[in-house]
Amino acid sequence: MNAEIIAVGSELLLGQIVNTNARFLSRQLAELGINVFYHTVVGDNPERLKSVIKIAEDRSDLIVFTGGLGPTKDDLTKETIARHLGKELVMDEQALESIELYFKRTDREMTENNKKQALVLEDAQVLPNEHGMAPGMISDNGGHVFMLLPGPPNEMEPMFLKHAFPALQSKLGTEDVIVSRVLHFFGIGEAMLETEIVDIIDAQSNPTIAPLASDGEVTLRLTAKHSQPNTAMMLMDETEAKILSRVGEFFYGYDDTSLMYELTKLIKENNMTISAAESLTGGMFQQEFTSIPGAGGLLKGGVVCYTNEVKAEVLKVRKETIDNDGVVSAQCAAELAENVASLTNSDIGISFTGVAGPDELEGNPVGTVYIGIWIKGNPVQTEKLNLGGTRAANRVRTVKYGCHFLIKALKESQSA
Amino acid sequence: MNAEIIAVGSELLLGQIVNTNARFLSRQLAELGINVFYHTVVGDNPERLKSVIKIAEDRSDLIVFTGGLGPTKDDLTKETIARHLGKELVMDEQALESIELYFKRTDREMTENNKKQALVLEDAQVLPNEHGMAPGMISDNGGHVFMLLPGPPNEMEPMFLKHAFPALQSKLGTEDVIVSRVLHFFGIGEAMLETEIVDIIDAQSNPTIAPLASDGEVTLRLTAKHSQPNTAMMLMDETEAKILSRVGEFFYGYDDTSLMYELTKLIKENNMTISAAESLTGGMFQQEFTSIPGAGGLLKGGVVCYTNEVKAEVLKVRKETIDNDGVVSAQCAAELAENVASLTNSDIGISFTGVAGPDELEGNPVGTVYIGIWIKGNPVQTEKLNLGGTRAANRVRTVKYGCHFLIKALKESQSA
Repeated sequence: MNAEIIAVGSELLLGQIVNTNARFLSRQLAELGINVFYHTVVGDNPERLKSVIKIAEDRSDLIVFTGGLGPTKDDLTKETIARHLGKELVMDEQALESIELYFKRTDREMTENNKKQALVLEDAQVLPNEHGMAPGMISDNGGHVFMLLPGPPNEMEPMFLKHAFPALQSKLGTEDVIVSRVLHFFGIGEAMLETEIVDIIDAQSNPTIAPLASDGEVTLRLTAKHSQPNTAMMLMDETEAKILSRVGEFFYGYDDTSLMYELTKLIKENNMTISAAESLTGGMFQQEFTSIPGAGGLLKGGVVCYTNEVKAEVLKVRKETIDNDGVVSAQCAAELAENVASLTNSDIGISFTGVAGPDELEGNPVGTVYIGIWIKGNPVQTEKLNLGGTRAANRVRTVKYGCHFLIKALKESQSA
Repeated sequence: MNAEIIAVGSELLLGQIVNTNARFLSRQLAELGINVFYHTVVGDNPERLKSVIKIAEDRSDLIVFTGGLGPTKDDLTKETIARHLGKELVMDEQALESIELYFKRTDREMTENNKKQALVLEDAQVLPNEHGMAPGMISDNGGHVFMLLPGPPNEMEPMFLKHAFPALQSKLGTEDVIVSRVLHFFGIGEAMLETEIVDIIDAQSNPTIAPLASDGEVTLRLTAKHSQPNTAMMLMDETEAKILSRVGEFFYGYDDTSLMYELTKLIKENNMTISAAESLTGGMFQQEFTSIPGAGGLLKGGVVCYTNEVKAEVLKVRKETIDNDGVVSAQCAAELAENVASLTNSDIGISFTGVAGPDELEGNPVGTVYIGIWIKGNPVQTEKLNLGGTRAANRVRTVKYGCHFLIKALKESQSA
């Protein structure tokens, strides 16, 4: 079954809102093993909507519409579809009742045009709306399934999960199960990663392998189909093992993870606490760390040492270091990491000092960064980066490299 | 000129990412007076991409493509368009040079498939990529303009603003000038703002007034059309004056500003320095502050005092305060603000302490926040917030309120 998702609403074409519904529905349909080949957005215009419906009928089996089910004149999705299919709109008594109840509950007055929302395509399966007024519907028309869903995500998403997903599942009968898995890599570029495994990608059709790069990271999505879930998983395991035998050193986690999440998990496992001294990153490491639910308790705190004065006065970087090595140096990073841990009495200290840009500093080009890592009982380590991006990108990458190096160091000290 | 935006990338159809590019481009094209009638998303598949191009040629004058310009085999946007238009792809020497430079600067090895990124449509106007490798291009083909842009927003957006926007402007020739202005408000909800000025919105067609709410802020976008730029500006000035006579107390700035930007501007004007003590915000204030270009020098640094231990040991909050008032208190916020300023020898100290959630703290419900503000020569001030959102939203709003209150306090101390 091939699907297309059509969002109806001029607010999308004006850029007032983002089409997050298409993302949600794409993920859901992928879980059902339905291929989504197109997303379309069209405005509140019956002629253009009609032309879009005709195009969709030529190329898709399942056509999912979002939006245009509201009470105003602009809302014309079901009217246009009814005309196109030659069907009547009929009053759905249950939907009408639930709309009346909604107004009673919220103590607001019901207007005549709200009744319009209870009209549904004759013969359609009605999908109740438990978070708003407009019901959804599924209409099966000789080869094409039309699904109409409301636009607001807080109405559409629960409706889809509770009512539309099982309805589609039973329509599909006993077909293949689709499972997917995302592998996360850091420290290798997309082109390099692909070069390393191009023969695996080319030889592979089940699972498929899709690379994606963003913000200095690369992910590979493996997607396998099989009538037996266990076999689908096994196919993915085999392909994953092949991939990791080539580029395993850059692999750090599965699915909805992040470097920061992996780091907090590891620190928790080690029963440790951490603190940070941040110069060029200005607090970004600690802010991201504390944004991970449950990680707050692991971070004692830290110092944003943007100026040399704070590096010297608060974090006690030695005068000789600042005078001789400069603040953009391995020596400064080392002292910052050790001293912030001792100031806050933490098991781990991490530091970031360098040149985010746009201007160079102490003769060091933009993108020169030193990261210091001190773990209780171990000598302090430092790493140097040469980043080549904008100020914002350099800060983001510096934090990611910090997580990456600290994860490595923690694993080494665990296995030592 | 009618436009269509086509995003190419299977990751969109799998729901891995959201098509924010369509939103950005829709807004920009609206500014130029170009109607966007369709958004389309298609996967990395040459046949389906070709069919989508044909459909777009039937209904749109300007066809903007995003994505598929990368180095991997999946990336086939320009190859497919070239074949469809019967054009050659030629090596753009400048783009190649900039790619080589990028690899040299970042100290990474260039692979053969990276060279592919420097190929452009013959006769195309090349749009330099200053934040990545793949150049964009504009190709004019008898009635249809094809624009190809890279997929990553951090490359696409600056490229569009700097190179594509002016190119389109000159293609459009001497039509009405469209000017727009964004007014930023903080401390008033969207519904309330709209209620206050609904009669102005209804009476108004030039400029149009479009409200938009996001992240606790509300903006109004005024857009005026006129053959004379001066007249268009005057029309906007008049409408703005009417609006600000009603809700001026919540207004804080124009266009691409932010509360943080306005704050850094004011601190610079006052020739002052600042430092911050951050508990629940975990470094977010300082991270945002230092992300504003040129603001780094104004922030001396500060302390992330996530634990009570760091509040007491590093920031010297008194034992009686912690024992009697608790850390979620006006007294604690006051001491944090004064002490962080004195620790770092700054003119301004700001502090954030409270309950981000998900759990309550010291019997205070989620969303209870105290902000402390100390400005040299003035008594310390505190403000209490009762926020009701998620952990992430509460942190973001806390930082915004901090900027808002500090801006107010600085203006008052200026005028005193």
